[in-house]
Amino acid sequence: MSLVVQKYGGSSVADAESVKRVARRIVDTRKQGHDVCVVVSAMGDTTDDLIELAEKVSPLPPARELDMLLTAGERISMAVVAMAIAALGQEARSFTGSQAGVITDGVHGKARIIDVTPGRIRAALDEGHIAIVAGFQGVSQDTKDITTLGRGGSDTTAVALAAALEADVCEIYTDVDGIFTADPRIVPSAQQIARITSEEMLEMAASGAKVLHLRCVEYARRFNLPVHVRSSFSHREGTWVTDQPVEGAVVEQPIISGVAHDRSEAKITVVGVPDKPGKAAEIFQVVAAAEINLDMIVQNVSAAVSGLTDISFTLPKTDGQTAMNALNRAQEQIGFESLRYDDQIGKVSLIGAGMRSHPGVSAQMFAALAEAGINIEMISTSEIRLSLVTRAERLDDAVRAIHTAFGLDSADGEAVVYGGTGR
Amino acid sequence: MSLVVQKYGGSSVADAESVKRVARRIVDTRKQGHDVCVVVSAMGDTTDDLIELAEKVSPLPPARELDMLLTAGERISMAVVAMAIAALGQEARSFTGSQAGVITDGVHGKARIIDVTPGRIRAALDEGHIAIVAGFQGVSQDTKDITTLGRGGSDTTAVALAAALEADVCEIYTDVDGIFTADPRIVPSAQQIARITSEEMLEMAASGAKVLHLRCVEYARRFNLPVHVRSSFSHREGTWVTDQPVEGAVVEQPIISGVAHDRSEAKITVVGVPDKPGKAAEIFQVVAAAEINLDMIVQNVSAAVSGLTDISFTLPKTDGQTAMNALNRAQEQIGFESLRYDDQIGKVSLIGAGMRSHPGVSAQMFAALAEAGINIEMISTSEIRLSLVTRAERLDDAVRAIHTAFGLDSADGEAVVYGGTGR
Repeated sequence: MSLVVQKYGGSSVADAESVKRVARRIVDTRKQGHDVCVVVSAMGDTTDDLIELAEKVSPLPPARELDMLLTAGERISMAVVAMAIAALGQEARSFTGSQAGVITDGVHGKARIIDVTPGRIRAALDEGHIAIVAGFQGVSQDTKDITTLGRGGSDTTAVALAAALEADVCEIYTDVDGIFTADPRIVPSAQQIARITSEEMLEMAASGAKVLHLRCVEYARRFNLPVHVRSSFSHREGTWVTDQPVEGAVVEQPIISGVAHDRSEAKITVVGVPDKPGKAAEIFQVVAAAEINLDMIVQNVSAAVSGLTDISFTLPKTDGQTAMNALNRAQEQIGFESLRYDDQIGKVSLIGAGMRSHPGVSAQMFAALAEAGINIEMISTSEIRLSLVTRAERLDDAVRAIHTAFGLDSADGEAVVYGGTGR
Repeated sequence: MSLVVQKYGGSSVADAESVKRVARRIVDTRKQGHDVCVVVSAMGDTTDDLIELAEKVSPLPPARELDMLLTAGERISMAVVAMAIAALGQEARSFTGSQAGVITDGVHGKARIIDVTPGRIRAALDEGHIAIVAGFQGVSQDTKDITTLGRGGSDTTAVALAAALEADVCEIYTDVDGIFTADPRIVPSAQQIARITSEEMLEMAASGAKVLHLRCVEYARRFNLPVHVRSSFSHREGTWVTDQPVEGAVVEQPIISGVAHDRSEAKITVVGVPDKPGKAAEIFQVVAAAEINLDMIVQNVSAAVSGLTDISFTLPKTDGQTAMNALNRAQEQIGFESLRYDDQIGKVSLIGAGMRSHPGVSAQMFAALAEAGINIEMISTSEIRLSLVTRAERLDDAVRAIHTAFGLDSADGEAVVYGGTGR
């Protein structure tokens, strides 16, 4: 007997019928002899509906109250999932994030998990119950206020709980069959990945792959927890995110795991920065003070005559206005000439642990893009990742060109993707 | 400066516009220099919608999970009310029943408040915040599970919190102007009552008057807390439920306060019960074991020949099936002949502290009904109440006949009722 943590996303519990389907799957797992702890997201569009309601009463809802409001979503889904399980004759008990012992810091809207003390979950499991836990939410250590974990938070809840409970596996159920070598909507010949290392998955998530959220992968990596990403609409094997060998998975590890893309970033260029030591630091201090996470950074070669240089960086579009305001206020202090904002960019990233031992990867990638007539605006690299910024309208072409150049296209030219829903 | 607890029902916070209106009223109270603690119900039809959702996934949802589900309703309304207040420039903080320290027993669906420990509310008020508390919900003392207080539970939350906080007044906002001498939908000439004692209000609530719930009045009476029932749609003075004299309220106390009615009861008759000591007790033990509250009880005079008697009692229609099942199972043990179930009854009650010193009240009431040709099936009395059961289809006539007979009709023949919404 093992302990399985399962997480079902909003599309898997979108309505009463979906909830009953998910309940049957959970009960099946229980009947196979496993202890089961389930983490659920809010049903379908509930979160969006609640945000809309908040916007109707306040132009800028206080973050504490927005968290209080949004956590109603998972409360509803966890209770109905527990009811649907009970209707199948199994005992289920639902727990809020707070009740499940998900302790966070106090940053409303994007709290970080500090600790997980799942005493009540453990007790419920020991009594033979199926435990249903609200994803996405926790309680702040200092003020005991309700917090939310931000985008992808339910995945993080699931992995954090699985780690605290020392679960054997964390299954992340979604509406696709697993992780693919590229987004199948852009690359129809993308292939499902049988197994990917946590390091590669981390780079995929950081580069815009949407299936798993970055923090969730970080957590799984830290606790060495196998994560199985699979469809709630089929019984197919999904993608294993694990650093251990997986039975039945491909043994030979390819050089490249996949191609990720990201349309959510913008580029800010600080024009005419005095080319003196410390000026770049000043700029990034201003941005950091506004609590904005930068991604790529490029400093142009200084024009010797003027003694001025340009510094460009990318950041989430959602932080664009805040960053521009912060920099504008600091213009006199830093002494730059002007700011340029560009949200028509796209980022494509090639990820693969095999890059470490294959030095020709970047040359091959640049060649593929040159052949497709795509201009590269920024470059950044890690040990196992190579990211490029292109014009947004050429991003899809770039993803396809790279996917083909590295031999990732499936033999039959069309991926078998997305579960049994026809989506 | 005083401390005011305000409670707003579901119709007062039915949508975003209503929430904003309520927020303005709360902020006005705060600006008058009062500390304000607000208790809210779920918005409009939220609770019904959630029950409907539960029924879709389970024929008989576990009570614990139903409570978990339903409490999402107040969570939503308290958060948006807090947001709407913040949008008006005042600090507001919302608290769940559990956070507000509403400790209950473990009876899901109709939990009783055991204790209120409002430390966090007190702290919020001391910091100058307006505290918004979810009504209807608490947390069980033993298992720390979320509970709900049952019908009218938000009123009880408000009064219990007001008592624990030693508030100066508890204002119950509703969609009518206050308590009336009878339901104005039945008696158009009913008058608003300026002040009523808690004892009378207790009898009114127990007799079917819907504006305030029984347990809320019991709580207010126990803690000697003035309750002001008023409309959230107008600024008119409402009805004061208090045992203290109220400034501006009528000084001369009438004999009769009002006429209440109740359509929610059914009558069970146990036919052919052996007329031996202990048989009635056996019947009521069976009913009590099913956790059913009886109302009126009548035992017929025994027919000396047969040695058998009939026992009738009334109970909530919702408990009818349970009671019939329990009695059927005990037929052999008790030895009665048969059971009769009748849900076509109505109860009319006359309430007034003045009854104590005016012995002619019952005769006057019977005469009024006789004149209207209405048959009386059961009678029960308390010191300040006289209740009769009639056929359901004659109930409205009975209410009107009694209202007129005791001089409660307003001079102009039509009550000014219901606030500014045209409802």
